[in-house]
Amino acid sequence: MSEKKTLIEAYKEANYKILGHGARDVQTLQDAFSEVDGNLESDIYGTGKIIEEFQEKMANILGKEASVFFPSGTMAQQIALRIWCDEKGIKKVAYHPLCHLEIHEEDGLKELHQIEPILLADKDRLIRLEDVTNIQKDISCLLLELPQREIGGQLPKYSMLEQISTYCRERNIKLHLDGARLFEILPYYEKTAAEVCSLFDSVYISLYKGIGGIAGAILAGDKEFIKKSKVWKRRHGGDLISLYPYIISSDYYFNQRINKMEDYYKEAGELAKLFNSCHAIKTKPELPVSNMFHVHFLLPKKEVEQILIKVYEETGVGIAPYLREMNEKECYYEVSIGDMYSKVPKDELNKSFAMLDKDLQQASK
Amino acid sequence: MSEKKTLIEAYKEANYKILGHGARDVQTLQDAFSEVDGNLESDIYGTGKIIEEFQEKMANILGKEASVFFPSGTMAQQIALRIWCDEKGIKKVAYHPLCHLEIHEEDGLKELHQIEPILLADKDRLIRLEDVTNIQKDISCLLLELPQREIGGQLPKYSMLEQISTYCRERNIKLHLDGARLFEILPYYEKTAAEVCSLFDSVYISLYKGIGGIAGAILAGDKEFIKKSKVWKRRHGGDLISLYPYIISSDYYFNQRINKMEDYYKEAGELAKLFNSCHAIKTKPELPVSNMFHVHFLLPKKEVEQILIKVYEETGVGIAPYLREMNEKECYYEVSIGDMYSKVPKDELNKSFAMLDKDLQQASK
Repeated sequence: MSEKKTLIEAYKEANYKILGHGARDVQTLQDAFSEVDGNLESDIYGTGKIIEEFQEKMANILGKEASVFFPSGTMAQQIALRIWCDEKGIKKVAYHPLCHLEIHEEDGLKELHQIEPILLADKDRLIRLEDVTNIQKDISCLLLELPQREIGGQLPKYSMLEQISTYCRERNIKLHLDGARLFEILPYYEKTAAEVCSLFDSVYISLYKGIGGIAGAILAGDKEFIKKSKVWKRRHGGDLISLYPYIISSDYYFNQRINKMEDYYKEAGELAKLFNSCHAIKTKPELPVSNMFHVHFLLPKKEVEQILIKVYEETGVGIAPYLREMNEKECYYEVSIGDMYSKVPKDELNKSFAMLDKDLQQASK
Repeated sequence: MSEKKTLIEAYKEANYKILGHGARDVQTLQDAFSEVDGNLESDIYGTGKIIEEFQEKMANILGKEASVFFPSGTMAQQIALRIWCDEKGIKKVAYHPLCHLEIHEEDGLKELHQIEPILLADKDRLIRLEDVTNIQKDISCLLLELPQREIGGQLPKYSMLEQISTYCRERNIKLHLDGARLFEILPYYEKTAAEVCSLFDSVYISLYKGIGGIAGAILAGDKEFIKKSKVWKRRHGGDLISLYPYIISSDYYFNQRINKMEDYYKEAGELAKLFNSCHAIKTKPELPVSNMFHVHFLLPKKEVEQILIKVYEETGVGIAPYLREMNEKECYYEVSIGDMYSKVPKDELNKSFAMLDKDLQQASK
């Protein structure tokens, strides 16, 4: 009997999983290092072949003069905003109300840098040009997150991005890209990373989202900006004696996955369609613009959990490892497509969604 | 001909090296992970078996209620001082003029935390009780570094430590231990880590000095302090999704080396004696109190470099990978004893020091 099984347990036990690249386990590191020559020397406090070559590679891909490897995006982005604020002498920036800096960083930007954020747009929609032109105070920097993760990974039209970029340049407002999932949106925009980044003064990318590394981030911009960011990296305690465990694995998985972003994007569209064909389910956005979207179940969390556990056990396909409660009648979770999705046999997938649909229909009555 | 060989090149090519645990290369990581089960799940943002078990182990060893793993000591120590300052409402601390926070962190403590340090003692000696009792301003915290690295790794008498600790407790001044090399001094003090730490309210230890891990630090203290430090860790960008590359290697090398600290200490004493038997060399301290000391050559850097390169080439023993200029007539470098020293055959070692002595004698004429 499995009545006491939790959703995460049932998900882990499923033969197939539709999310991500697989378990976050030690194997990820072991695979990345299995072919590396043990004599390869560690980076030392931001210097050395391993870190310098990777930074140069990323700067080239992003079309920027230079880049620096950071242990985390939290550190990289606070520092980017701090540099732009110091340069202009105004400790104000603007970003979305659901920006990572606003909701996931324990107010580091305010507590460590005394920077005041101005929140643009409503929580449930993207920032538009008018939100930017309507800002009443002088700001140093505008941060745009592409895609806007917390609302399912939505994107503005590319022309809107260009308009915002032009406006910011005219008004001496630096434009920073939270590109945690930058590579994941390129197939939709049909642009290169460098083309998108050319609209921005500074760019952060994550190395463990679509790329699937262990941890780490890149911050890119002009040489002067990057030079300053290295000083702040040391101040933050991010200038570790050795960052190679993250750098080597980032490079390994970057090479493995950078050309799969188109597949992930198409598969996200395919999967969203499957979800939207089910009773009491809506995806956000309806048509994904990257490898991610949110799945909203219009039923109480506890009921959906029981239905999902049953589906995993009977079909062997794990759909969601967790659910978050929106309110008493709705819950949701986040889908990110990686290597796992294409490993699910189509038959099994269709069977599991047919069962899910049937059970949700019954529960909705 | 090798006229153009640099000191570091000659050192790397030497058959034997007297310093450290060996090259900082990828093998260090590969060895630590070679026996780990690939299915072991990553820590996730500070939670999970890997990180929690290691933190508990370290808290027990340090005799504190709790501990937290940090990517760097820079981050851990700034945060410790910030918490104590916030608690007392006074943004002033005291430490040695050559404290890591003062000379190696790009003023992170001031720039990120607006904490004002009061520098105690002269640069070239240890902090004494009278330096502390003479502080004119109210401070939140006193930081003591054991051993005081930048002056060769010196230590106060244990009774002096006890007196300072008692004084601080009476005056409501928190005492923080920069214990980057805490395990390395225990054989000299003949104390356990927990005994030394009991004099302090908060303790930082490094995992890549004597322990020889890849990077990382532990901050330990009472539960309330550690809870706060986790919030600050996130603010600093140190709460990485996965820290296991550092944690697993820290634990691996901790287990391998924690019982070798007595050997390292004795070998440092033996080696310092060899150095002090040479012309134009003085070690600081003369009798090491840990695995480290500084070697001062009373000759110009360029001359000493040429002598050392010749000694490495002729005897195969690498003594110093670099030299730092004190002034036109003196240079020095830092010795840390690790696994490498005991691998140098005594005959070869004695031969190389005999040659070094002879060449220094000639150069001193």
